[in-house]
Amino acid sequence: MIVQKFGGTSVKSAARINNVAGIISDAARAGPVVAVVSAMGDTTDYLLKLSKQISPKPPARELDALLATGEQISIALVAMALNQMGARAISLTGSQLGILTESVHSAARIVDINTDRITRYLDEGLVVVAAGFQGVSSEGHVTTLGRGGSDTTAVALAAALGAETCDIYTDVNGVYSADPNMVATARLLDRISYEEMLEMARVGAQVLHPRAVELARKNRLRVRVRNTFDRNNTGTLLTGAGEMEIYRPVSGVVLDRDQARLAIFKAPDQPGVAGLIFGALAERRIGVDMIIQAFHEDRSVNDITFTVRRDDAQSAFEALEAAAKELSAEGVSVDEDVAKVSIVGAGLMDRPDVASKMFTALGRAGINIKMISTSEIRISAIVSEKDAERAVKVIHDLFHLDE
Amino acid sequence: MIVQKFGGTSVKSAARINNVAGIISDAARAGPVVAVVSAMGDTTDYLLKLSKQISPKPPARELDALLATGEQISIALVAMALNQMGARAISLTGSQLGILTESVHSAARIVDINTDRITRYLDEGLVVVAAGFQGVSSEGHVTTLGRGGSDTTAVALAAALGAETCDIYTDVNGVYSADPNMVATARLLDRISYEEMLEMARVGAQVLHPRAVELARKNRLRVRVRNTFDRNNTGTLLTGAGEMEIYRPVSGVVLDRDQARLAIFKAPDQPGVAGLIFGALAERRIGVDMIIQAFHEDRSVNDITFTVRRDDAQSAFEALEAAAKELSAEGVSVDEDVAKVSIVGAGLMDRPDVASKMFTALGRAGINIKMISTSEIRISAIVSEKDAERAVKVIHDLFHLDE
Repeated sequence: MIVQKFGGTSVKSAARINNVAGIISDAARAGPVVAVVSAMGDTTDYLLKLSKQISPKPPARELDALLATGEQISIALVAMALNQMGARAISLTGSQLGILTESVHSAARIVDINTDRITRYLDEGLVVVAAGFQGVSSEGHVTTLGRGGSDTTAVALAAALGAETCDIYTDVNGVYSADPNMVATARLLDRISYEEMLEMARVGAQVLHPRAVELARKNRLRVRVRNTFDRNNTGTLLTGAGEMEIYRPVSGVVLDRDQARLAIFKAPDQPGVAGLIFGALAERRIGVDMIIQAFHEDRSVNDITFTVRRDDAQSAFEALEAAAKELSAEGVSVDEDVAKVSIVGAGLMDRPDVASKMFTALGRAGINIKMISTSEIRISAIVSEKDAERAVKVIHDLFHLDE
Repeated sequence: MIVQKFGGTSVKSAARINNVAGIISDAARAGPVVAVVSAMGDTTDYLLKLSKQISPKPPARELDALLATGEQISIALVAMALNQMGARAISLTGSQLGILTESVHSAARIVDINTDRITRYLDEGLVVVAAGFQGVSSEGHVTTLGRGGSDTTAVALAAALGAETCDIYTDVNGVYSADPNMVATARLLDRISYEEMLEMARVGAQVLHPRAVELARKNRLRVRVRNTFDRNNTGTLLTGAGEMEIYRPVSGVVLDRDQARLAIFKAPDQPGVAGLIFGALAERRIGVDMIIQAFHEDRSVNDITFTVRRDDAQSAFEALEAAAKELSAEGVSVDEDVAKVSIVGAGLMDRPDVASKMFTALGRAGINIKMISTSEIRISAIVSEKDAERAVKVIHDLFHLDE
């Protein structure tokens, strides 16, 4: 059994839907197929525009009910296309798929999948065309899974159904050593470990959402990232690091422009300060990425700097201003002209020289590093957005990632 | 408790949705409200166009799943608009409403409504915004109710919930003695009996679908047809004939252009012939309206003439050709340039002179009558489409319907 997932650009038009149906029906000849489909091209944007015309802040439940129609349209059309080419298919919404989620709107997590209905249709020889991004709460409300929702649906279904492989079809050939639009010599990776992919996804490589990668890793699921528009391409395979002999210290370099840096200056150095600041951000559902706390010479106050997604910058700034007032901090700042450049590699942990090489090379190129954070297999640097693309090229050359 | 229904033109844009939400929230101040909403303006046409790009004849199940998204979009938006103006509201799809239908697609009938969930929300003080036109089969498939679906949803919900009134909001003031666009002196009727409305709806007055009228009559439900865009207008009230002192022999004259006339010539006069012909049409789900069977002098063969909706004319013609071959009939014909002019009145049954007056007046005006059919409270004549509008005016004048 195989689970396939097709993103919004893959089903943008009738012609593209027919292309996708061709891929699915070919796979269906070899065995049972569940095809997870996103909303067509700009349907979601259109629906969001409609809702904004009516209400600047609509109830999350109604927004979910509205947005879920996007995938319901595309799954019906893909099922029609499959039937038209002789492959018997049935479309199922999140609720019909048995995807039970938390009772949270706009970013619900999957709690359980009751696969009875899917299995019954597969047993009858039908291709199941599954709506990505959506589920149903125990109260029977339509929920959506938030960012990376369709990828998550695909991986979760693959895990629940015990599928051999989950093919994520997108509009690129797979995972590259750097964005090929930015670095001409970027190389397509034929394999990558879950851990590397997770770090790459987290720092902005948009082929596969970290949530889906995490779920794949947990279930040791073979996930392949492939190109919808180039069927001969075998793409990039995600597997456990144990399956590969990894010698590369650096697999790729990733740029994330969706960053804003905020700071609060001279907050009192006492217990509960960080809790108050980041609690206020969590209340607004703002995810925080890098955090750096620096103490001043007199040790009674701290500067705290962190990054958030650019969309969240203004809301985070308001929260921070309120916190600063409460804490009698000296001031706050926000900088939206930053980007994050990261290198990722499963071999990084054994090579302490990689970080210093990277910082030295950036320094020589006149690129100022504003913040640094690292994990076992990733090193990220916040730089000015104007320097970001150059930083990617410098690093790609430095580590010979084209080889 | 009140049930309100708003058609597609009433929710065509954000501004119109806000207008509708205003009507609903005003009603909600007086008591519990269930508002049934159709798909926005041309959403259904857009979805049909999409599906035709993919498949000329998509599976009915998938077409239903696709079309049902139209109402799901509009109910979410109406619920948002209500919440925006401070009226707490929740949108419910056909499935969430508990509208159980037959396991038939594209024209399912309602089998039962489980009102538990609706009642719970109403008890919590919420306005329920209900998707018209859709339900769910016992197998959990999304079904649609076919023509007049949203009207039927509204009346069925009103009956199931024991609502006092069902207000059908549309883009006209109510039921007129004739189409005001055609007859300048047409008069708005403040009351009409179920039976008259049923006949008027059947012969083409499009304010309320006959299915919904029939259901209202069975449940003795007070249905009011009102104008979404003129809230001061009290519209036309449907009630039992017993509640009214009806002296009018003729309440209105109705034109139905959606007609085509078919005929089979010299079919053998033997048992089972009509069954074969109309069975073949039923198989294609073609509804037949007027039927006339005329025998020839030798009495061994019959001509059978009948009318269908114009959209069904070609398909009916094919079925008829096949039947003619099987029966060795002499030939078949189809005429799409016909229209049906009808007069309706609860007082008709006591006035045998009305029919002859009508036929004489049409004859004097040089209008040829091609077919006639009557019920207790209706007289219909098929005429050439070119004569149709003139026939309406002649009849409106004849019976002084402007008075």
